[in-house]
Amino acid sequence: MREVCVIGTGLIPFGKYPDKTLAEIGWPAVKEAIVESGVPPKSIDAVYCGSALGGMLSGQRVMKSLGLTGMSIINVENACSSSSSALAEAWTAVGSGRHDVVLVVGVEKLTKFGGGTLPLENEDWEVTQGMVMPALYAMRARRYMHEYGLTARQLGEVSVKAHEHGALNPNAQIRKRVSIDEVMASRPVADPFTLWHCCPTGDGAAALVIASADVARKQKADPVRVTASEVTSGLYTNGYRDMTWAELTARGAKEAYEMAGVGPQDIDVAEIHDAFTIAELMYYEAFGFCERGHAYELLSSGATSLGGDICVNPSGGLLSRGHPVGATGAAQAVEIVRQLEGRAGAHQVEGARVGLAHATGGGIAGLDHGACSIHIFAR
Amino acid sequence: MREVCVIGTGLIPFGKYPDKTLAEIGWPAVKEAIVESGVPPKSIDAVYCGSALGGMLSGQRVMKSLGLTGMSIINVENACSSSSSALAEAWTAVGSGRHDVVLVVGVEKLTKFGGGTLPLENEDWEVTQGMVMPALYAMRARRYMHEYGLTARQLGEVSVKAHEHGALNPNAQIRKRVSIDEVMASRPVADPFTLWHCCPTGDGAAALVIASADVARKQKADPVRVTASEVTSGLYTNGYRDMTWAELTARGAKEAYEMAGVGPQDIDVAEIHDAFTIAELMYYEAFGFCERGHAYELLSSGATSLGGDICVNPSGGLLSRGHPVGATGAAQAVEIVRQLEGRAGAHQVEGARVGLAHATGGGIAGLDHGACSIHIFAR
Repeated sequence: MREVCVIGTGLIPFGKYPDKTLAEIGWPAVKEAIVESGVPPKSIDAVYCGSALGGMLSGQRVMKSLGLTGMSIINVENACSSSSSALAEAWTAVGSGRHDVVLVVGVEKLTKFGGGTLPLENEDWEVTQGMVMPALYAMRARRYMHEYGLTARQLGEVSVKAHEHGALNPNAQIRKRVSIDEVMASRPVADPFTLWHCCPTGDGAAALVIASADVARKQKADPVRVTASEVTSGLYTNGYRDMTWAELTARGAKEAYEMAGVGPQDIDVAEIHDAFTIAELMYYEAFGFCERGHAYELLSSGATSLGGDICVNPSGGLLSRGHPVGATGAAQAVEIVRQLEGRAGAHQVEGARVGLAHATGGGIAGLDHGACSIHIFAR
Repeated sequence: MREVCVIGTGLIPFGKYPDKTLAEIGWPAVKEAIVESGVPPKSIDAVYCGSALGGMLSGQRVMKSLGLTGMSIINVENACSSSSSALAEAWTAVGSGRHDVVLVVGVEKLTKFGGGTLPLENEDWEVTQGMVMPALYAMRARRYMHEYGLTARQLGEVSVKAHEHGALNPNAQIRKRVSIDEVMASRPVADPFTLWHCCPTGDGAAALVIASADVARKQKADPVRVTASEVTSGLYTNGYRDMTWAELTARGAKEAYEMAGVGPQDIDVAEIHDAFTIAELMYYEAFGFCERGHAYELLSSGATSLGGDICVNPSGGLLSRGHPVGATGAAQAVEIVRQLEGRAGAHQVEGARVGLAHATGGGIAGLDHGACSIHIFAR
């Protein structure tokens, strides 16, 4: 596989756009990424569009609205990992030499469902039992609290950090700080989660132009490289599972680190899948940022805040930037690329050279996830 | 890109399975393909699942039901080209050297919608104007009839041929012959189409195991090779379009022929996207099987029937084998592979060495399609 670089990024502020179509949500991000890349639109060989609930031919609808048609367009669905899986397909297509320039777009319009629970498949037993995402993660949080003596208030500090970062990000859905008292006083969702322990629902889009190193170096002197691209699925079992261990992410992380030739100590900045507060803590451990049971210590030390050694979710993460399911993976990648290019603005991680994006999705695997996609970027 | 071969195929009879889940529809096809491949299930590096309307994480649900988990699983949606686009992604993944053994599955359960029109996106103007598929193709048929003097009865002969083939195929949804009088006397759908001019709706699944030539030649002396894999999208325009010319398919065919180093004269057997009778005739011309306006002559000569020079849709095609949207592309590929291996049974095309599969989908492009995927196979 040859070297793969990112030469353009685009993103719209995540939020609620009930009056826009999916195409109208998607195209501004695509346009921004193409303009930023410097390549003519007609040089785009293929488009990979990630959307979980956008309906048939989401990518074709977005591209048609820009008048950019006739290339290979393939839609990828992998729940919360949809656009990160699309990025993985684009990485393979460029890395293999099949294509030179590929556009990745993640787009979602959750407001079309009118709020509330997303449409899930009732052939999954978890769904029929009401074990939807907040319930599932709440159980994991309770078990983690039991095992490691974590309190709900300590857990809430993940949300405080997320919103401190998100308040600095003009593209975040929730651009305000929240205090730990506000987190704890917000309305209950699934014990121990109150509202601020949970990511918001909304709409959004993000896009990247990726290219072979040859093409990339004609556009940029020192382009961000994608040094690992990994997609894995959960290990299903009917037997005992340790709810406090994110096995899927840990397995994916190991493979991604090997592919990139780095370890957790090399990561300067990471966007990880904090759909709920407990998720961020579990993923610290799965990525090897700390030992098991020590995630809160890492958080409270400030190491994962802006200015710390491994800044996690400088964008605000899912909790504050928002989580329009299929758009999240691409948005994480956009954030990491901009961080490594030193143009993240008020939430810049100084001197970041190696970054990681992690999107994991699907609750149908019981205690673990259906799909997990991890990318490592370096400059 | 290195050589890519097919080492296993699986298929369930297409039909209506309202009492089965998507996973229950899908897993028997997957199991058959894996058993046929001879490789141990744990050697499968990745799964690409094509489904247009299966809901989130369709591939994960199918694989989970077999207890085969932990590999990369990516779901691909491209309307009627969903599982052929999944095959294209698998082809790239193996051809690039990223993976050695990849499973492709196409699966769909249309009976969950209770019959009638499929759920379409009302942000597409064609949908809001009622220009759904039968209407769109009926307009194209009317124009073709006007331009080339074709009669509705002549058009109906496409359906007669399809059902002659399908009657020989134990996996076809409609396993019976229909006479031209029955075709013409069936209930009207969209003039000039009566019911038998249109493919049925239903459920189905098909699967393939593809592998690098190194792996394949350990399993089979002379495996079927995938010599071209092409995905293209429609060219959208607000201006004049020739409704009788399948521009997208013609463009894809040109690219696929170039990739495989063959021409229309080399094709022994083809599975093409005959969702409606007129479609098959237009695609004869787009693939260069005959000159423009001469498709009916080709049909009536018997050249595209079993025993003819270029047998088209020996399986019965969409009209008779059925068209569970996301499963169709994989089913076409399974048919072509089995034809080239000489084990298609009663509908065997004698001596077939080069075959073609063509799935094209999506009506959102006005007169043309949203996605078209073409594969060429050779032995």
